[in-house]
Amino acid sequence: MSGYIEPIGRLINEFTKLPGVGAKTAQRYAYSVINMTESEAKSFAESILNAKSKVHYCSKCGNYTDEDVCDICKTRDASIICVVKEPKDVLAMEKAREFKGVYHVLHGVISPMDGVTPNDIRIKELLARIAEGGVKEVIMATNPDVEGEATAMYISSLIKPLGIKVTRLAHGIPIGSEIEYADEITISRAILDRKEI
Amino acid sequence: MSGYIEPIGRLINEFTKLPGVGAKTAQRYAYSVINMTESEAKSFAESILNAKSKVHYCSKCGNYTDEDVCDICKTRDASIICVVKEPKDVLAMEKAREFKGVYHVLHGVISPMDGVTPNDIRIKELLARIAEGGVKEVIMATNPDVEGEATAMYISSLIKPLGIKVTRLAHGIPIGSEIEYADEITISRAILDRKEI
Repeated sequence: MSGYIEPIGRLINEFTKLPGVGAKTAQRYAYSVINMTESEAKSFAESILNAKSKVHYCSKCGNYTDEDVCDICKTRDASIICVVKEPKDVLAMEKAREFKGVYHVLHGVISPMDGVTPNDIRIKELLARIAEGGVKEVIMATNPDVEGEATAMYISSLIKPLGIKVTRLAHGIPIGSEIEYADEITISRAILDRKEI
Repeated sequence: MSGYIEPIGRLINEFTKLPGVGAKTAQRYAYSVINMTESEAKSFAESILNAKSKVHYCSKCGNYTDEDVCDICKTRDASIICVVKEPKDVLAMEKAREFKGVYHVLHGVISPMDGVTPNDIRIKELLARIAEGGVKEVIMATNPDVEGEATAMYISSLIKPLGIKVTRLAHGIPIGSEIEYADEITISRAILDRKEI
């Protein structure tokens, strides 16, 4: 980092490792750290180390937790499992307050182009959970893109033969948006999946 | 932070203290920290503590340094002092590679509305530097806004009687921009300060 003294240059460099942070933003963040009080900076640094050391995957669902088994796995209806790509997706689903079951986080989707095979994501773990019994339905909530769809289809092909109901999140025009601005693939899905009212 | 386990919620909360970072961005940053390796997270946390503990004000100019006196004060022409509001402004000036003198960082501008009086910014320190002798010119490079102009005028009124040349950065149409998009105050300044070619 030219023009900066070493400690500031190093801090700016660390900030640029965060997603979407360029040199200018990193500089703004670094200067704000320097303007923090000693204890604020300490608390910031500690929260990073603390999160990194305490947070790991739930031994059941693979979502982030600071316990062995996460709160959702401990308290909710384990007969219905919602399969998602990433921990972020669990957060998004939870915000909707509609789903009462448990999750299974794959930590990726099958993508031969990127060298991600079914063995690289948490599919075995899902099958093991199902093998324990009691699962009635699996909702595939991977993203509606090529990899997400392919992963949903692949997992479905493994689970359906076990006599378990496999469903997929509905796709269509987002609530509150205008049809005018919806892309053509979304519109065709919305037409195909239309419901009688 | 609802919906998050404590270590993640705490980290998100820390990130929202950075300038311009909202809940969504802070969440993205926090998740990226959790996806870092142990040593990456450690290096990030250390760079924060390191910057905070090593960086302080240069005892002469008030810019950030990790030494007693900064490199600029040590090596450059001390007969001409450029007065700026913040350390960031030094960086911006240095990028232009035009100025060969030293700086004086005020760490603020006079702003009665915000309760900032001349005693709250580093004006005494500037006068002390001038009292040591050898200063021929002071360039006022505070921002061209109400507080910046008022601060420039106030400091100028203290320094001019000492027989020192006081100048102000030129204002006008920015290079590379279009006159069409310049605001009317900039255009009137550009007309008043027009130069014969």
